[in-house]
Amino acid sequence: MSGTTTATGLLAAIDGVGRDPKRGGYRRHVFDPAERELREWFVEQAQRRDLAVRCDRNGNLWAWWGEPGPGAIVTGSHLDSVPGGGAFDGPLGVVSALAAVDTLRDNGFAPDKAIAIVVFAEEEGGRFGVPCLGSRLLSGAIDPDVARHLHDQDGVTFAEAAAEAGLDPARVGRDDEALAAIGTFVELHVEQGRGLIDLGAPVAVADSILAHGRWRFSFTGEGNHAGATLLGDRRDPMVPAAEMVLAARIAASEVDDARATVGRIVPNPGGTNVIASTVDVWLDARAADDANTRGVVERIRDMATDAAARENCELTVVEESYGDTVVFDAGLRKTVSAALGGVPALPTGAGHDAGVLAAHVPTAMLFVRNPTGVSHAPEEFAEPADCEAGVTALATVLGQLAG
Amino acid sequence: MSGTTTATGLLAAIDGVGRDPKRGGYRRHVFDPAERELREWFVEQAQRRDLAVRCDRNGNLWAWWGEPGPGAIVTGSHLDSVPGGGAFDGPLGVVSALAAVDTLRDNGFAPDKAIAIVVFAEEEGGRFGVPCLGSRLLSGAIDPDVARHLHDQDGVTFAEAAAEAGLDPARVGRDDEALAAIGTFVELHVEQGRGLIDLGAPVAVADSILAHGRWRFSFTGEGNHAGATLLGDRRDPMVPAAEMVLAARIAASEVDDARATVGRIVPNPGGTNVIASTVDVWLDARAADDANTRGVVERIRDMATDAAARENCELTVVEESYGDTVVFDAGLRKTVSAALGGVPALPTGAGHDAGVLAAHVPTAMLFVRNPTGVSHAPEEFAEPADCEAGVTALATVLGQLAG
Repeated sequence: MSGTTTATGLLAAIDGVGRDPKRGGYRRHVFDPAERELREWFVEQAQRRDLAVRCDRNGNLWAWWGEPGPGAIVTGSHLDSVPGGGAFDGPLGVVSALAAVDTLRDNGFAPDKAIAIVVFAEEEGGRFGVPCLGSRLLSGAIDPDVARHLHDQDGVTFAEAAAEAGLDPARVGRDDEALAAIGTFVELHVEQGRGLIDLGAPVAVADSILAHGRWRFSFTGEGNHAGATLLGDRRDPMVPAAEMVLAARIAASEVDDARATVGRIVPNPGGTNVIASTVDVWLDARAADDANTRGVVERIRDMATDAAARENCELTVVEESYGDTVVFDAGLRKTVSAALGGVPALPTGAGHDAGVLAAHVPTAMLFVRNPTGVSHAPEEFAEPADCEAGVTALATVLGQLAG
Repeated sequence: MSGTTTATGLLAAIDGVGRDPKRGGYRRHVFDPAERELREWFVEQAQRRDLAVRCDRNGNLWAWWGEPGPGAIVTGSHLDSVPGGGAFDGPLGVVSALAAVDTLRDNGFAPDKAIAIVVFAEEEGGRFGVPCLGSRLLSGAIDPDVARHLHDQDGVTFAEAAAEAGLDPARVGRDDEALAAIGTFVELHVEQGRGLIDLGAPVAVADSILAHGRWRFSFTGEGNHAGATLLGDRRDPMVPAAEMVLAARIAASEVDDARATVGRIVPNPGGTNVIASTVDVWLDARAADDANTRGVVERIRDMATDAAARENCELTVVEESYGDTVVFDAGLRKTVSAALGGVPALPTGAGHDAGVLAAHVPTAMLFVRNPTGVSHAPEEFAEPADCEAGVTALATVLGQLAG
């Protein structure tokens, strides 16, 4: 491979895969045809570079420069997207890892420690609802039986989808060998806010991730005719569901740095002239620490419970996923920052596989400037020059850690 | 055919067609496999009774007892359902018409005027969004070009679906011959409220239908990351959409007999960890007259506009369908009521093909008691004895009008 490989050039090669014609952007969900096409493309790219490719028991792909084994320097990210997502969230970390390997080789670097590039499965939770599913399974952060029974919007279980993709669903779950393989994990990612715009810098190192989770609020009332049912006879779950959406904004605004979002709401049956019988509302809530995050969710639950009672509806709340605050390894962060000439450190509100793995191994993240400040949407972007600055930074860090 | 044919027995024959495994109840939408199976079943039932079957240019099925031509006595209803709908709304009127023909024949009745049973297409608007589409097209109440471009949730246009069902999409629209065929129209329907429960009677005649319509409110903001986007940077269309749901309840409660409902809401892209870029909300609004109905909608629009402005979102509102108040033909209502020994008269908040046709021909409706008071949901019901009272009433009315 030539050193002229760029992150932008590699992204261009997959530009047409998994376009979402309905929403704009991309629809690349774990084990769907688009995501499988991206996996095949990654395998082919790894093989072109003589990297040995393996798929672990949980569907994460590994490409090895050097002998697979414990204590490697691991980098990578994911190839799946949220529905209607952008081109950079996930893929930038994967293509930058490939380009960084090219850069190191072009520089004549010979690693003392093995380097591996990993592509984690279902980072966004866009298909089965639990984000970072691949790294959670690998590290034992989710019960494999719970994972097997997760299902997508068509009722296909994770076990079924995994089997169809060639995995053995009975063998998903904590993978001590894979975990031991990760001596250090470094994930490069497009920034998902405006931090680097404000700092005027192309690259930063992460210092922390907000505590965050997902909760499903299910309101149950009584389905009925929208024209023939008097207001006083109604038990319309859409009404408390709407109050809960507003409660989320109120509760988050009461706590510094907290965020609470409803991006998904599904009334059943969903007919225009039908009072819904049930409405499911998904809450994404995040705050600086566990107490604040759980406080925000409890406040929303209290308001939603009152709203449901006023409409004679029932409410159940299920926690679908949760991750406590992550403070990245301070020593590693200093090493990385120093190697890059003192790049700034930034917190993030977004979850990442690096955050899941941080409970087990030293992890670090590099962010690349996003001039729109927008992510999880087609407007997500990174300038080619910033992408190359990211590749150079990642190559520098990998070289230092593996040299 | 034997006089032992009952409405309940006929309904039992189609009990398994188009079950909605996800929502409960039925999913029978115009020209989908379930609704086409019901159409075939109806044709077969008509042919067993030596009724000549025709499909008009707009997809409405006609079964003739006597020579097709102007001024016939027409009865019938529809076979499509709302998503997750009940077994009676629509089919009860069709099977009661078949059973009433059997009853009249068993009684040796020979009609002076031809009698026709009609099955109207897309009464619920469950697939293409405009209720009473078949009768609207037939009577010229909707521009055929507008109808051709209506599309379902998969993007299939009405023109495409009609062509696939064997119609010529270029020929849909006002059908003066079919309209002239209807001398009088009588529709039997399950009641969709609690009126007959309260009256302790099995059958009533309709006196009026509320003015009613459907409006699509589209809120546009900026899609972004649910974790990384500060509250103050958000333009989240879900927030004004939720306020609009609550505004609908407020506005309807300010006007006697008004109803306003949101049963369908679709955020785009609809990911849990994604601030939506757009949210579409469908409003079903009804009131006693045009001024009150439009007043309720304007009040909701005003509140939604303010809510959208507070979140820096845009709002557009499209009227998808509208029907003014229908007061059924007073002379016909008296005739019908007298023929049935003075059954009570009831208003309804539900729209019907009889309401659309009332602008052109004398129409009447019979309601059959619904012991749950619930409609557009699996709980919708009518006792077998009440169904047979309905058949007897319909046969009596048809006999009087056609004799």
